[in-house]
Amino acid sequence: MSLTATDPTDTTALPARTRAAMLHGARDLRTTELDVPALGGDDVLVRVAAVGVCGSDMHYYAAGRNGQNVLRAPTVLGHEASGVVVAAGAHAGVAAGTRVAIEPALGCGHCAACREGAYNVCPNGTCLGSPPTDGTMTEYLVVPARAVHPLPANIDTVVGSMIEPLSVAVWAVQRADVRFGHRVLVTGAGPIGLLVAQVARAAGVTEVIVTDVNDHRLAVAAELGATRTINTGATPLGEDLQVDRVIECTAVPAVLWAAIRTVRPRGRVTVVGQAAPNVDGLPLAYLQRYEIDLVTAFRYAHAYPTAIALAASGAVDIDRIVTGRFDLDHAADAVTAPVTDPTHLKVVVTP
Amino acid sequence: MSLTATDPTDTTALPARTRAAMLHGARDLRTTELDVPALGGDDVLVRVAAVGVCGSDMHYYAAGRNGQNVLRAPTVLGHEASGVVVAAGAHAGVAAGTRVAIEPALGCGHCAACREGAYNVCPNGTCLGSPPTDGTMTEYLVVPARAVHPLPANIDTVVGSMIEPLSVAVWAVQRADVRFGHRVLVTGAGPIGLLVAQVARAAGVTEVIVTDVNDHRLAVAAELGATRTINTGATPLGEDLQVDRVIECTAVPAVLWAAIRTVRPRGRVTVVGQAAPNVDGLPLAYLQRYEIDLVTAFRYAHAYPTAIALAASGAVDIDRIVTGRFDLDHAADAVTAPVTDPTHLKVVVTP
Amino acid sequence: MSLTATDPTDTTALPARTRAAMLHGARDLRTTELDVPALGGDDVLVRVAAVGVCGSDMHYYAAGRNGQNVLRAPTVLGHEASGVVVAAGAHAGVAAGTRVAIEPALGCGHCAACREGAYNVCPNGTCLGSPPTDGTMTEYLVVPARAVHPLPANIDTVVGSMIEPLSVAVWAVQRADVRFGHRVLVTGAGPIGLLVAQVARAAGVTEVIVTDVNDHRLAVAAELGATRTINTGATPLGEDLQVDRVIECTAVPAVLWAAIRTVRPRGRVTVVGQAAPNVDGLPLAYLQRYEIDLVTAFRYAHAYPTAIALAASGAVDIDRIVTGRFDLDHAADAVTAPVTDPTHLKVVVTP
Amino acid sequence: MSLTATDPTDTTALPARTRAAMLHGARDLRTTELDVPALGGDDVLVRVAAVGVCGSDMHYYAAGRNGQNVLRAPTVLGHEASGVVVAAGAHAGVAAGTRVAIEPALGCGHCAACREGAYNVCPNGTCLGSPPTDGTMTEYLVVPARAVHPLPANIDTVVGSMIEPLSVAVWAVQRADVRFGHRVLVTGAGPIGLLVAQVARAAGVTEVIVTDVNDHRLAVAAELGATRTINTGATPLGEDLQVDRVIECTAVPAVLWAAIRTVRPRGRVTVVGQAAPNVDGLPLAYLQRYEIDLVTAFRYAHAYPTAIALAASGAVDIDRIVTGRFDLDHAADAVTAPVTDPTHLKVVVTP
Repeated sequence: MSLTATDPTDTTALPARTRAAMLHGARDLRTTELDVPALGGDDVLVRVAAVGVCGSDMHYYAAGRNGQNVLRAPTVLGHEASGVVVAAGAHAGVAAGTRVAIEPALGCGHCAACREGAYNVCPNGTCLGSPPTDGTMTEYLVVPARAVHPLPANIDTVVGSMIEPLSVAVWAVQRADVRFGHRVLVTGAGPIGLLVAQVARAAGVTEVIVTDVNDHRLAVAAELGATRTINTGATPLGEDLQVDRVIECTAVPAVLWAAIRTVRPRGRVTVVGQAAPNVDGLPLAYLQRYEIDLVTAFRYAHAYPTAIALAASGAVDIDRIVTGRFDLDHAADAVTAPVTDPTHLKVVVTP
Repeated sequence: MSLTATDPTDTTALPARTRAAMLHGARDLRTTELDVPALGGDDVLVRVAAVGVCGSDMHYYAAGRNGQNVLRAPTVLGHEASGVVVAAGAHAGVAAGTRVAIEPALGCGHCAACREGAYNVCPNGTCLGSPPTDGTMTEYLVVPARAVHPLPANIDTVVGSMIEPLSVAVWAVQRADVRFGHRVLVTGAGPIGLLVAQVARAAGVTEVIVTDVNDHRLAVAAELGATRTINTGATPLGEDLQVDRVIECTAVPAVLWAAIRTVRPRGRVTVVGQAAPNVDGLPLAYLQRYEIDLVTAFRYAHAYPTAIALAASGAVDIDRIVTGRFDLDHAADAVTAPVTDPTHLKVVVTP
Repeated sequence: MSLTATDPTDTTALPARTRAAMLHGARDLRTTELDVPALGGDDVLVRVAAVGVCGSDMHYYAAGRNGQNVLRAPTVLGHEASGVVVAAGAHAGVAAGTRVAIEPALGCGHCAACREGAYNVCPNGTCLGSPPTDGTMTEYLVVPARAVHPLPANIDTVVGSMIEPLSVAVWAVQRADVRFGHRVLVTGAGPIGLLVAQVARAAGVTEVIVTDVNDHRLAVAAELGATRTINTGATPLGEDLQVDRVIECTAVPAVLWAAIRTVRPRGRVTVVGQAAPNVDGLPLAYLQRYEIDLVTAFRYAHAYPTAIALAASGAVDIDRIVTGRFDLDHAADAVTAPVTDPTHLKVVVTP
Repeated sequence: MSLTATDPTDTTALPARTRAAMLHGARDLRTTELDVPALGGDDVLVRVAAVGVCGSDMHYYAAGRNGQNVLRAPTVLGHEASGVVVAAGAHAGVAAGTRVAIEPALGCGHCAACREGAYNVCPNGTCLGSPPTDGTMTEYLVVPARAVHPLPANIDTVVGSMIEPLSVAVWAVQRADVRFGHRVLVTGAGPIGLLVAQVARAAGVTEVIVTDVNDHRLAVAAELGATRTINTGATPLGEDLQVDRVIECTAVPAVLWAAIRTVRPRGRVTVVGQAAPNVDGLPLAYLQRYEIDLVTAFRYAHAYPTAIALAASGAVDIDRIVTGRFDLDHAADAVTAPVTDPTHLKVVVTP
């Protein structure tokens, strides 16, 4: 194929159809053939190389919903993706052949939040793979050129697909206002917690304490640079830790409440795990007595370039976290793999 | 009396005894005579002029406790005080005759929080009038010189006693990171809410919306500069407000939860009302979807000079808020007055 | 005329030609007839109502250049403008008939600075009235819809044209990180200094000291709310001022250097006056000894809504600053008026 | 010796006299015997182990002055010190036998700057080894207990003496507001530049570019983690670098001016090198066009704990920087060594 950015009109060579892993209902994920959308002047056509499976994909598959968002019509799953640009619109400014990570949520571009650069909290925004918006578990995908971030030569496309969760971790550490020299507690040693712990280390914190109730995951955390691990099933957290920052990655309220009590005065707790609509038991008096801030992180904004640089520099080990690969026709196996085998961390679908 | 800062050793003229409103147990507040403590080199002896009654004083009086803090031995009440310096230690650097507002909580001075200037969240700190530390409802008081802040000539001592709650409001607005041009929602039109609304106006916000369930208080809020008032008993808050900041002054969780939903993406909610240890119903997913920060304010740090400047400039109307005055022997009447007569805002004891 | 946003295709009624004040060379400003550009889908056509004269317009007129920017081809002057929308493109989202202030510099929208919301420092940006980009001293103007900001009913179009310099002042105060309670020194009581002083007052500073060498301008500053004025021709600034912030509006290096020495430790100096490429005499050791930050303000970003709100609330008095009005055919008189008559503050051209 | 913190009154065993390297005038540094000052209740007596030689020591030795500060009476040199506590006052809270780094400048403790934690910019502050205050090139030293910071077991006392310059680097990186993922330019590969570059790397920057005109020093920079080095004698800096932060460590204005032009819009330049009182050639228009902030760093505040943690973790290699050791009687050789042999980086006096 000889598609180039300067010849976007030779659409004869462009694929017209693509096969995609489409969720038709709870537990009904099937490879389906779809039209490839038209390529606009600011768009790129990407041949998808790898798509990470996220907890949200698992929720959609298992229950047809993720939190408040409900599957109402068949939707292609997936939002953690990398690929190769195979064609580019006239104004895209990206060369065909470029290997890229894809940013799945860009904001509407017009609201006050977007104008100030806070596109991740755009009230009108959509995200690839969040119903009803089709996702990235497909062979070919058309996205705006600003959604693709070039990958350096030393990052393969599987790692490229992990730039999305790594961006979650980068943004979490930024929202947490982690500074070098800090002592940081990361609750939860799942994929996001393990990436957050590594990014915190890369950011120069002198101590990273990771908690979980799963010794296997804690062992991986230690291997990846945690300076201390605590199995909170056996050892409850004590107030004496006096960490500067907590980054909460379990989505379990009781873990959050306990973590708050480990923070020094004027410290900060950042919730990254997907939060429930209403949670009981907030220790508000404790937060107030010590003016500990409770903040949250939602996806990421402007984080891809930093995530790519961290991955390229070797400061973050992603390979250790990818524990399984599946082809497109086995996407259903991929989204159930971490349930079937709890030693899985991240699995990837390679269309 | 001819006491001066340069002759602190002429202790013959210093009062040896003082009469104070001491709380002996719930509903048992009696004038009691006590020794005046010795005057150290860094201390000043203040003849107290006025002491505001705070909600915490009312709690101690009614129940012998305030939140987690329990009265276990007789304690002099009061922490909102002004007075006149009548003698000063050799190193105090304050002239006798100086009219001052008294800052009741200074921190230990040695911990990490104190060293960085965050003395209000010092874990070791005490506060005048918080049992077991005696308070300011007394004729004579010895405090460190750094606890007293000179009052300009155009502030009388009753207003001087209100510098403490005004500092709470100043700090609340600072912690809220209110910037000029913001739209601010203040929940609760009690004394603190009314001061917060005025400070926010003075800080150049273009809109101050005040809520309460009491129309009388809302009318005072409007009189003092609220650009809009809402009786939330009749009109629930809508998500369409999209304010930049909420400053929560009711200590009622349901009010806080509703207020969170009025904030724009990346906005901030600051809890000033005395928080309960555990509260149910936190809308954590909403906070996360829009990255709205939940922060708190505890007392104040470095706020007295700004509070004094605001009061002196006339930007904040304190007289409108002081609705009753009682002498020391009627301190028990003072601490029950706002219950007896709900139109009271602030009452003051004048020893 | 019955143009509406819903009928942009009825171009028969749209003006095809417009008369504009075009600068053909130094001291050669003439009314010239030009084509009105085509109206794109995201654009609006504005009938210009008022255009303020800025110091940069005076420089272009007098010398054919402003700082580094040189007039190389005839250019329409002017960038401080208000008007009425007479037609809107299909996607503009602005109704015909809307009275608006026009923001003249929007950034390219694609670079890293623009993506993060810092469009005022976009390296690729253009500005209306900065050669070679035509400006606003014209009857009809086509601009992107995002460049127009609706004016509330209580702001007339002459005040509307002053939203641009008021936005300069708003941004200056924001860049200066002025907080309520601060003490602020504003150097220079020209139009920008007078607006900056008023915005600082509106932002709750307790003291605004304004300096100039012109007693007439200092008298206006006092009238508009300066708490103190200093004629630095007669009274040099002393280090004892210890202000929190300086906002420099004279563009005279010696004034800046003297002002730096009035700042408290960890204070901040913000340069708003148009800076020269190379300036001698920076007191760098003094800045370092007290860690005083030297920052700058360039135009404004996201400031129009706040400027409009401040003007509408009456917190800033703009009428006092507008001292002359000229029609389009007398634009040359307008751009020389402040030189001819030094008591002028701002003059406005009304096409 | 059996001195302990619990027996400070047994002064019979305390040394009464100490030998010190005292500067009597330019080029006149002699070992002199002095009385050991009395040990106050909040003080500790330290047996000094190692004292680093700073550029300021070299200036005092060579010229009898350093910048504005002039030697007017014989003064003990030195301010980069470590040692062992041999006795402690009753309230010191430090055990005899503790190995410590000594912080030489603490502020007056009473001014506004000190109260807010900004003790490094205290206008009243003194610093050990800055005339007329005696310094640390002595066998025994009495300092306030808050001046000593315990050293972990894996840091020897020579490294301990380097905690002071490392704190300069830590503070520089903090004042520079360096965030992980940033691209940073460090100008100057002397001891401070080499430490700054290492701290920046530890703080997670993805690129550290170091400049100098000395290839030997640039080679050390590369060895210590610089991702790129530029000999600016051969290759002038280009505007295309577009770094996020510059940290200026040469004290040469021309270097600073060139470095400013490498910064991206809204970036920041931090001056660490000892600044001259008046410098010519500030590119103020460039700073303003891109709103690049010019800030400075003076000593450090609250930086010792982070510096110690970085040294202990191995994130910063200090041994590579210490290139010479001299005993007390050869202090004059020590302060001239870097001039005599330009390959020296840091030399240490070990009393």
